[in-house]
Amino acid sequence: MRVLRSPAAVSRLADTWRCVGLRTALVPTMGALHEGHLALIRAARRWADKTIVSVFVNPTQFGPGEDLAAYPRDFAKDRRLCAREGVDLIFAPAPRAMYAPDFSTWVEERRLADHLCGMRRPGHFRGVCTVVLKLFNICRPDMAVFGQKDAQQTLVIKRMVRDLDVPVKIVVHPTVREADGLAMSSRNAYLTTAQRSVAPRIYQALSAVTRWRDEGATIAVIRRRLRARVRHIPGARIDYVSIADEDTLDEIRAARRGQQLLVAVAVFLGRARLIDNIRVRW
Amino acid sequence: MRVLRSPAAVSRLADTWRCVGLRTALVPTMGALHEGHLALIRAARRWADKTIVSVFVNPTQFGPGEDLAAYPRDFAKDRRLCAREGVDLIFAPAPRAMYAPDFSTWVEERRLADHLCGMRRPGHFRGVCTVVLKLFNICRPDMAVFGQKDAQQTLVIKRMVRDLDVPVKIVVHPTVREADGLAMSSRNAYLTTAQRSVAPRIYQALSAVTRWRDEGATIAVIRRRLRARVRHIPGARIDYVSIADEDTLDEIRAARRGQQLLVAVAVFLGRARLIDNIRVRW
Repeated sequence: MRVLRSPAAVSRLADTWRCVGLRTALVPTMGALHEGHLALIRAARRWADKTIVSVFVNPTQFGPGEDLAAYPRDFAKDRRLCAREGVDLIFAPAPRAMYAPDFSTWVEERRLADHLCGMRRPGHFRGVCTVVLKLFNICRPDMAVFGQKDAQQTLVIKRMVRDLDVPVKIVVHPTVREADGLAMSSRNAYLTTAQRSVAPRIYQALSAVTRWRDEGATIAVIRRRLRARVRHIPGARIDYVSIADEDTLDEIRAARRGQQLLVAVAVFLGRARLIDNIRVRW
Repeated sequence: MRVLRSPAAVSRLADTWRCVGLRTALVPTMGALHEGHLALIRAARRWADKTIVSVFVNPTQFGPGEDLAAYPRDFAKDRRLCAREGVDLIFAPAPRAMYAPDFSTWVEERRLADHLCGMRRPGHFRGVCTVVLKLFNICRPDMAVFGQKDAQQTLVIKRMVRDLDVPVKIVVHPTVREADGLAMSSRNAYLTTAQRSVAPRIYQALSAVTRWRDEGATIAVIRRRLRARVRHIPGARIDYVSIADEDTLDEIRAARRGQQLLVAVAVFLGRARLIDNIRVRW
């Protein structure tokens, strides 16, 4: 396994792979790898001849007062896990190699990104789109894998790829969960034991939605019940609870039969802001 | 020479070229080709094994009230000229093939683009950056040629390419001029005979700048003289007259020895908005 810090060196290596017809996949991460990331890496390896994992805590997707400095970093462990999974290349650039002092070009999705997390974290998806496009241009993969846990991110990136004709196939992997249902996230490391013990109730609340749908509840009723369930998690503070059309991310009042919905929540629990979602066909 | 309207077909053809090691160059144009474009095409052909010319009047770089509808279009002539120049592929998409009805992703350079034409044409460079990145992703050239006449555009695109790690070499070709000095432009077609006869005075005014510099005039004096010269062109209305640092496009009050300056003007002459510039080393 190679570990490269220079974008130019990564581009050269990726080019040699492409020129001999090897299919390459990229798994973009911010490091602090957990089983969720490893599932993405395994999906990439099944699909591709060469698998690249990028490890980069991207400063431009953090807002002022967010957890950029505190974000968990353990490169030695990330490196061990990648080696064990058969990753071919880790790309781990320094921030200054990605952003020149007079950096001034941004990629911005303006429709889907204005909802949910985008409303709560202004500039977040602009940072995400910009860094993902940069990673694509540097690594030039045929395919890239993202996790469904970051549902809005997957939709925004798919839209960016379509709109800008980016020649990368986007694969979305189902959310990987702990045994008790909590969605895996590097930010789970922020939870105290007490917070960790109640955190699975986020997914339990989401899971009730399909049952309520089957019982004939309206969207308004489901939204109210979901909010109530999440609000009653000890120590939780709701950032948002959303039931939206998956294509537009517009909040819906009533669902059409067959409509694909994204039911998503963001919750502050102690220092952690946790997100989770389920896709529901109406 | 192939003529393709489908982005997917162009990507497929460009991929076959790249896979056998052929170097490709792209000349992005809005059609209405003149000798200036042909000079870019010849530069591309000297450099590359395969030359692509895109012909696309990009709606997103025109503001409301600008000349999108009136912009000259003559595809039969463009095609003839490209064939004569030995172009390998014309990419001429329909607007709907480039912009889905729910298109929502933009590429924006926020520093250089806020000066000169960007101040006068809000959103112009956002449209330019977005379409150029799309053309790069569709045509996947090794190199692309732009004309120095659109000086700010070349600087903004170079910055975008650097910031987003776009794997395309940008070549800037000197402005091609009519015998009397008028910079070639598709918009010269808007000029009446009377306007055409005074239009060369734009470049004559610009050309005086190096003489004034050699005579020891200050930037403030040169700016005043340049404005006066342009203002006295019959029928001309100044949009801007700029003496700026070429790296930042900030207007300067005094020049450092060795500083690279961009001296640029934009002038309304009848229906036409004409731009021209010279680069001056102090």
